[in-house]
Amino acid sequence: MQTREFFVSGPGKVILHGEHSVVHGKVALAVSLNLRTFLRLQSTSSGEVHINLPNIDTFLSWEITALQPLLAGCKAEQGGLKELDADLLKRLREFTGISEDSTDTRSMAVLAFLYMYLSVFAESLASITVSVWSELPTGAGLGSSAAYNVCLSAALLSARGNISYPLTPQQESASKEEMELINRWAFMGEKIIHGNPSGVDNAVGTWGGFLRYHAGNITPLSWVPILRILLTNTKVPRSPKVLVSAVKDKINKFPSVMKPVLESVSAVSCACEQTLTEMAAHGPSAELYNILEELIDINQHHLNVMGVGHSSLDTLCRVTLARGLHSKLTGAGGGGCGITLLRPETDTSVIQRTVEELKACGFDCWETSIGAPGVQQHSSAALSQDILKILHSY
Amino acid sequence: MQTREFFVSGPGKVILHGEHSVVHGKVALAVSLNLRTFLRLQSTSSGEVHINLPNIDTFLSWEITALQPLLAGCKAEQGGLKELDADLLKRLREFTGISEDSTDTRSMAVLAFLYMYLSVFAESLASITVSVWSELPTGAGLGSSAAYNVCLSAALLSARGNISYPLTPQQESASKEEMELINRWAFMGEKIIHGNPSGVDNAVGTWGGFLRYHAGNITPLSWVPILRILLTNTKVPRSPKVLVSAVKDKINKFPSVMKPVLESVSAVSCACEQTLTEMAAHGPSAELYNILEELIDINQHHLNVMGVGHSSLDTLCRVTLARGLHSKLTGAGGGGCGITLLRPETDTSVIQRTVEELKACGFDCWETSIGAPGVQQHSSAALSQDILKILHSY
Repeated sequence: MQTREFFVSGPGKVILHGEHSVVHGKVALAVSLNLRTFLRLQSTSSGEVHINLPNIDTFLSWEITALQPLLAGCKAEQGGLKELDADLLKRLREFTGISEDSTDTRSMAVLAFLYMYLSVFAESLASITVSVWSELPTGAGLGSSAAYNVCLSAALLSARGNISYPLTPQQESASKEEMELINRWAFMGEKIIHGNPSGVDNAVGTWGGFLRYHAGNITPLSWVPILRILLTNTKVPRSPKVLVSAVKDKINKFPSVMKPVLESVSAVSCACEQTLTEMAAHGPSAELYNILEELIDINQHHLNVMGVGHSSLDTLCRVTLARGLHSKLTGAGGGGCGITLLRPETDTSVIQRTVEELKACGFDCWETSIGAPGVQQHSSAALSQDILKILHSY
Repeated sequence: MQTREFFVSGPGKVILHGEHSVVHGKVALAVSLNLRTFLRLQSTSSGEVHINLPNIDTFLSWEITALQPLLAGCKAEQGGLKELDADLLKRLREFTGISEDSTDTRSMAVLAFLYMYLSVFAESLASITVSVWSELPTGAGLGSSAAYNVCLSAALLSARGNISYPLTPQQESASKEEMELINRWAFMGEKIIHGNPSGVDNAVGTWGGFLRYHAGNITPLSWVPILRILLTNTKVPRSPKVLVSAVKDKINKFPSVMKPVLESVSAVSCACEQTLTEMAAHGPSAELYNILEELIDINQHHLNVMGVGHSSLDTLCRVTLARGLHSKLTGAGGGGCGITLLRPETDTSVIQRTVEELKACGFDCWETSIGAPGVQQHSSAALSQDILKILHSY
């Protein structure tokens, strides 16, 4: 271990188009959300492993000697990892006292960390302290678990020496192979937390930018622009499972009405992809922004047809439209989060007043962007004082 | 002429499903609206023809001797009328001083009346006074001109002896042949007023109930229920032509997105037809009403996708949904009118409060029904005192 301190970050994710219809084999566009999760890994000589997760009030540590027996029978498999080691996971649940039924954020975060730590460092367990802090709300469909897993994966692999760290000034990012390694380990973490994830969230967290997702295939779009948005969390709780099931029921109830709607959503995703590609090739124009706005409106209506709208999301759309801004829900719907496209010429004062009005509705609201880079290494000098302060507190 | 006084009425019309997509060859459902137009025809010995249209402040009369020369070269063709007699219409425009460019309600109403009167009574012009009063607002897409033309047609043909009047107690309505004759003459009136009408409005005004309209074919649905509704006029002015053209542009701009939406609207019309048929066969049930409501919501979202929504219509939907009632625009959109389905169990107090709230938004609002009978004869005893008073004032 050459470097004593590692800083990495990973973005969140939103679905730009195609939520729900993706479940039925249609095209979806997922995109990185520049609300990021930051991780500091410090190598120590304490003989202990520490994990600090201030967002969820979780601060735990273990003696390495206590962890070592958990590796009995494990094979180090950083390079070719494919399947989750169910035995290791079972031993970890017993060790931590986290039952099979537990799916709470804290338990899942601890399991994913210990699993990844033990697997990556299987040959020689290292003394480390890992602190993670995120700008993302958890459980809001914004890929906070993927951002966490991507950061864990990148930092642990860096500390283990599997990933070049720090990058040389000539390197813009890690190599394709290294990125794929990060993504694969992050996917392991996602499997631990979610059981059967699509792999989209960790792919967005790793690669950043826009990804096309279709029938299980994930294709990053090259050369796409970064778009300014407002991200609004209505804070209306919803159950993605119940919503997905309700959409399925509606399709079964009215197949001839609903199937064309899924077709249309798929076409919206494709039209959006084409528009983004044109934007990247010829620069953004008012006309292209108009198209992006029209597609957002159309898809929001389609999501209402699927029955996954909510009065809080109607409020979001109405409040923003009153200022000429177009919004749609993102993710499962039924409350949850929405995105509002900001145009390059949208005035700061308009944005401020919109954010104020949305907060007055009881919503959380962030001015941020989509299409931002994926996992990144940072020097401590490049991080904001606020973030450094939090990551150094533990 | 045996009877000295004839009373007839005809209903208005709303599009239940399929507005706009019908222009693109999809199925639409039109339905009679029980806001009616009432007509009194009185045979006189004045040697004059009077037309009184208090809704549009129009009261005109002509000497029969002055009208007679207009018939030079005309053939009476009550039975087999097919084409508009362009020469007669031209002579009427010259006679009344109504130019080719005039399309205002008064001018069109007068032209349609004189044309129908002269054609029906071509063999022997009769002294008559015709008074028409309507519950329908004009120019709101509610088929007020068709209701007017249906009444004119039925009353003039009755006075001329082409239609049995009054019906015997054994007769529920005029014969199929008589109804078809009324409809054909009413269609002539519609051609005078609108140039190139679809024929749907006069068909609804004549037959009442629900009509399926698809690719130029009009099919009355038999055995359908009468449904209680609120009819709301947002009074936001709109241009149907501009809206139809905007939808066309949107289809050309996003064909792969928009064409499935038209498919889905067509499927909504068919699903609604099926539900109404089931209602008629097995009686209304909560489940069938739920389906009608779901279809209304879906179609309203689709109309928003087409870009023919309006904030006033969003308000209508929001206000009614807050009381558990489902609404959609009807007709061209962009403002104009909307319908709200009332369930059998919807409480009077709920309806009253909803109407009050909609009126407080600046809208006109009527509690009425759809699916009601088409053209009807009335004895003066069967008409309300208010209506009789108006029709007897002139």
